[in-house]
Amino acid sequence: MSKLVIVGTVAFDAIETPFGKTDKILGGAATFIGLAASQFNTDTAIVSIVGGDFPQKYLDLLSKKSIDISGVELVKEGKTFFWSGKYHNDMNSRDTLITELNVLADFKPIVPNAYRDAEIVMLGNLHPLTQLSVLNQMSKTPKLVVLDTMNFWMNSALEDLKNVISRVNVITINDEEARQLTGEFSLVAAARKIHGMGPKYVVIKKGEHGALLFHDENVFYAPALPLEEVFDPTGAGDTFAGGFVGYIASTGDTSFENMKNAVIYGSTLASFCVEKFGTERMQNLTKSEIHKRLVQFKQLTQFEIELS
Amino acid sequence: MSKLVIVGTVAFDAIETPFGKTDKILGGAATFIGLAASQFNTDTAIVSIVGGDFPQKYLDLLSKKSIDISGVELVKEGKTFFWSGKYHNDMNSRDTLITELNVLADFKPIVPNAYRDAEIVMLGNLHPLTQLSVLNQMSKTPKLVVLDTMNFWMNSALEDLKNVISRVNVITINDEEARQLTGEFSLVAAARKIHGMGPKYVVIKKGEHGALLFHDENVFYAPALPLEEVFDPTGAGDTFAGGFVGYIASTGDTSFENMKNAVIYGSTLASFCVEKFGTERMQNLTKSEIHKRLVQFKQLTQFEIELS
Repeated sequence: MSKLVIVGTVAFDAIETPFGKTDKILGGAATFIGLAASQFNTDTAIVSIVGGDFPQKYLDLLSKKSIDISGVELVKEGKTFFWSGKYHNDMNSRDTLITELNVLADFKPIVPNAYRDAEIVMLGNLHPLTQLSVLNQMSKTPKLVVLDTMNFWMNSALEDLKNVISRVNVITINDEEARQLTGEFSLVAAARKIHGMGPKYVVIKKGEHGALLFHDENVFYAPALPLEEVFDPTGAGDTFAGGFVGYIASTGDTSFENMKNAVIYGSTLASFCVEKFGTERMQNLTKSEIHKRLVQFKQLTQFEIELS
Repeated sequence: MSKLVIVGTVAFDAIETPFGKTDKILGGAATFIGLAASQFNTDTAIVSIVGGDFPQKYLDLLSKKSIDISGVELVKEGKTFFWSGKYHNDMNSRDTLITELNVLADFKPIVPNAYRDAEIVMLGNLHPLTQLSVLNQMSKTPKLVVLDTMNFWMNSALEDLKNVISRVNVITINDEEARQLTGEFSLVAAARKIHGMGPKYVVIKKGEHGALLFHDENVFYAPALPLEEVFDPTGAGDTFAGGFVGYIASTGDTSFENMKNAVIYGSTLASFCVEKFGTERMQNLTKSEIHKRLVQFKQLTQFEIELS
């Protein structure tokens, strides 16, 4: 059982989709990552920050999933990070309506002492310098560091971002961001350029079209499960990352072959996440539901051509 | 060894891509389908029409691939169907520059007597009434009829198209066309509606994102091989269809499990087609190259999660 440290936002989201809208509900990258990772046999801690307005019941929810929250700083006089967005009809694009950084503006993450020797570190989407400060607190080199980021940091903090990219083993990034980061349209060419920036493993997320895992000249492809209806895509990418690191942490195996399985677990968990608003589906997800969906993934992808 | 009848265009194409442009070269749906199917152990015939301007060497090329061309009508005083198009930089969209129907305008396909009992019929993209006339010439009900079509016929001959759709076992269609035909955005919902129109098997082609095979509640997903460079997408969809029907014809097995393999063979052959202009790559493709790429497809998609 490996230790897994997740740094990222624990936040409020307000979401509008063609199917409805929510008030402020539980959100944040670290929340989605943690809930997904909690499906695996790991010793997981979240490092984050919330304000005095953050309900205790949300923190209790994470604790009940056996997630250590001693690294979640509570700023009583502050307000919790808040994001609000509206999805277009095709669910592939969205407008950000509100971003209130609040306590996140001065977030200085502190990794609890008990987790400074964690084997696996997941750097959720945050300012690259914040991500770096977590890496610098580790008492030994982690076995695997996974980075998630987004185009916002490419536009506003590219040099810092390149610095943190150079120090991680795995990067997860979506297709448009991979193109922006590298100036390459072909995802094969983009992945090669990103390899050159540091990460030996590059995961390119393509939303409803699945995800690609690149490692040198090797490629693995995990489709997204074809769904009748995507109810709310919020958190799907983080849930994917959480499934990925959770599986790696529980197996302790960072080989490319095992990462293929990790990508399938990530896709499987993400396929649940989008079925309801926010974290709702992930809160009550059972092992037997996951097992059933893994069977579907096998049927979806496995074939029997015999090659001599 | 099953008999396979392919109806479709044998034509001239002139293609412009970001990588260069061609004069009039060999093209046409039936040409691409036939060249792909010729990789398998089948007794294949093309039913089509060409004009007096069509070079004998192109016909010889098809014959050398053991394709029966007795059903390719030669109209000496006529001109061959000609299409010209220009691809945009992303290679996912194109503008049609020229469409000259020429001899195709009066095409009345005649299936050679020796092929009227064919087990497998591939209806390449043509006017739905032309496709229907081929079906009506068959002396017994084929084991499998596969239909390819496009949005043009949805706009101009929808009732005829629905008629032919109701008489086939498999339809291949791209994602946007599936949405247009059904009014459903979700491809799962679109496939279900198309099932209701007749075909028990629905293949939805998503270009660089691969292809989905639907059969009742079962889905299979074949990715496209991630390529560094797509040189010319012309004919990729037809090559996919040709690999699909060629494999089915050579195995004689029309089960869903075997169709999974057929979809993989279709994707594999299509991944070669786009490497050079027009049919160039398909003309010289070897069995050993195909074998190597099938190994790549296995590495790309197969994983080892044990499910009890």
